[in-house]
Amino acid sequence: MSSGVGIVSAQCAHFTQPLELKGGSVLPAFDLVYETYGMLNAAKSNAILVCHALSGHHHVAGRTADEFGKPTANVGWWDNIVGSGRPLDTDRFYIVGVNNLGGCHGSTGPASPNPATGKPWGADFPVVTVEDWVASQARLADHLGIDAWAAVMGGSLGGMQALQWTLSFPERVRHSLVIAAAPKLSAENIAFNDVARQAILSDPEFHGGHFYEHGVRPVSGLRLARMLGHITYLSDDQMAEKFGRRLRVGAGSYSFDVEFEIESYLRYQGDKFAGVFDANTYLRMTKALDYFDPAQDYEDDLARALARAKSEFLVIAFSTDWRFSPDRSREIVHALVHNGQAVAYAEINSAHGHDSFLMNEPHYHAVVDAYLKRVKL
Amino acid sequence: MSSGVGIVSAQCAHFTQPLELKGGSVLPAFDLVYETYGMLNAAKSNAILVCHALSGHHHVAGRTADEFGKPTANVGWWDNIVGSGRPLDTDRFYIVGVNNLGGCHGSTGPASPNPATGKPWGADFPVVTVEDWVASQARLADHLGIDAWAAVMGGSLGGMQALQWTLSFPERVRHSLVIAAAPKLSAENIAFNDVARQAILSDPEFHGGHFYEHGVRPVSGLRLARMLGHITYLSDDQMAEKFGRRLRVGAGSYSFDVEFEIESYLRYQGDKFAGVFDANTYLRMTKALDYFDPAQDYEDDLARALARAKSEFLVIAFSTDWRFSPDRSREIVHALVHNGQAVAYAEINSAHGHDSFLMNEPHYHAVVDAYLKRVKL
Repeated sequence: MSSGVGIVSAQCAHFTQPLELKGGSVLPAFDLVYETYGMLNAAKSNAILVCHALSGHHHVAGRTADEFGKPTANVGWWDNIVGSGRPLDTDRFYIVGVNNLGGCHGSTGPASPNPATGKPWGADFPVVTVEDWVASQARLADHLGIDAWAAVMGGSLGGMQALQWTLSFPERVRHSLVIAAAPKLSAENIAFNDVARQAILSDPEFHGGHFYEHGVRPVSGLRLARMLGHITYLSDDQMAEKFGRRLRVGAGSYSFDVEFEIESYLRYQGDKFAGVFDANTYLRMTKALDYFDPAQDYEDDLARALARAKSEFLVIAFSTDWRFSPDRSREIVHALVHNGQAVAYAEINSAHGHDSFLMNEPHYHAVVDAYLKRVKL
Repeated sequence: MSSGVGIVSAQCAHFTQPLELKGGSVLPAFDLVYETYGMLNAAKSNAILVCHALSGHHHVAGRTADEFGKPTANVGWWDNIVGSGRPLDTDRFYIVGVNNLGGCHGSTGPASPNPATGKPWGADFPVVTVEDWVASQARLADHLGIDAWAAVMGGSLGGMQALQWTLSFPERVRHSLVIAAAPKLSAENIAFNDVARQAILSDPEFHGGHFYEHGVRPVSGLRLARMLGHITYLSDDQMAEKFGRRLRVGAGSYSFDVEFEIESYLRYQGDKFAGVFDANTYLRMTKALDYFDPAQDYEDDLARALARAKSEFLVIAFSTDWRFSPDRSREIVHALVHNGQAVAYAEINSAHGHDSFLMNEPHYHAVVDAYLKRVKL
């Protein structure tokens, strides 16, 4: 029997020591919003950091409460894997979810006040990288008194953070779970990201990133970006199975209204996302993806780049993921094997494309469960 | 030795008999702009119709002339395959290229005057289908005195027209060359098309399709649509080889300017296209793709749908085409084989993805050449 973590609430850590970013600018101070599940043991050796992907945040598991303390429908994005008896077992581990710098869920980001002006940062919020996120998360680890994570874990862009942790702080992470990720983006990946960014940047309501002051939001551009992104998260087969070519309303209307179910689905996803997400955050998240390339300083030799990691690794890929295909995960595995580093690799048959890492796939969860069970505390 | 067709000029045929469209509306009259290369023989048995794809037109081969009769740089989009000694051999065949209804290269389309108002049709121009195009092309065949085409040929959306010809007019086409096509779009194909359409429809300068009257063009939306389309025309490997992750300017700028070469390339393609193409045409071309589904009236049984064709077929697919993969071409081949119909199939190894059908791939051209050489006149 497994059970979820129940009602959760976020906390906020304020950091006053300036953070120098990879791009050269300095954040004088910043907040990180986070949630925790389970109990930190006395040795502080049972902490797992969960890193989020492009549109994620600190609310990983459980439900938030309404003003009367009742649970809302706001369930964490990875709730299916966190809880008592679940792979990230809260009876054993202390799990930390954090909203990344530049985000739009409470941590310091483009909508936060710029201390220099008192107005929202907007376009002036710096471009942040995976390395910057890891550096800021290390501050959070300090704040929580955690010298070394039992594990750092994430899917997609979150998996890149799990990998970067082993390079930025080799002594501070004992296990790295890199799921549905890649050692760097392909030209095609960058191309999709750039079209998404162009959709936002060319929306007249973007106002060069200073839309907050105009009381508007670039909803149209953000909606297009999300629709496009969503296509790349699903598998072709899954779309075919889920939507086929079914018409939403009987015969074709010979107009540009919604006709096929896939159109209805995508527009709904786009509208929902555009209603809540911050366009400046979206731009920065995609840019962090594009920039991630640990082998860049090693003449594209990934094995050399990963040699300084001291962590053990679990790498997981999904058969129908065409955004970061199993081939890309295998690049990481081959580099680690080449170095004689400890790595386990699982390639999971799943119909859900890139999104599989969020799904309740029994085989996938069993692999994570088995791996984490052997992590010594 | 092969040579091109030299300087060419377009002609315009005007049709006054109303054309009833599949969507139910009626075009009272229409123009089709076309070019021809080679000579129609006395028996009128050597004519090949070349159908164009999404952004194509009637200018298939040769160069247009400037006002002084000198050749311009405006080379036809399939020039590499048409000419004396080329696969579409103008010493033997009479080749016809036509701009489709709803286009923006001279044939009646959204920018043409609506006879009811005297103003451009704009949004009121009907949605046209592959069947409608074939019906209008049959009028052009009548106009040229051609009872039956020796062959109808096209790539991508053009291949769908080549297939539809065999169904709409089984007696009027002896060979059908269906290249880089599919018997219908997948949900993923439709999804990409819908995002492209949404980019145009949500551009404030689209003005509900009546932008002509406002003296503006939805350049931004059209540019996004083309950038997105372009990603799907190329192969991932080809992009990797051509652009990799090379930065256009030394180190990262940590901004949203062009940084990676792939971004520079895509934005250039988007800008170039958006500068000349008509947004209303683009909407209609993608919709014609989405609607194409000859098996729809046959309980999705493609073999039954194709049974009435009397043509012989050459079907060609390209290994790295992920827009319309070889699997999709094989669906057509299997249906024809099931019916005992005459079909040859070639799957060409090519690095150029969907765009391969436009490329000078020796193996591909050799297959077309060999096939057409055995076409009896």
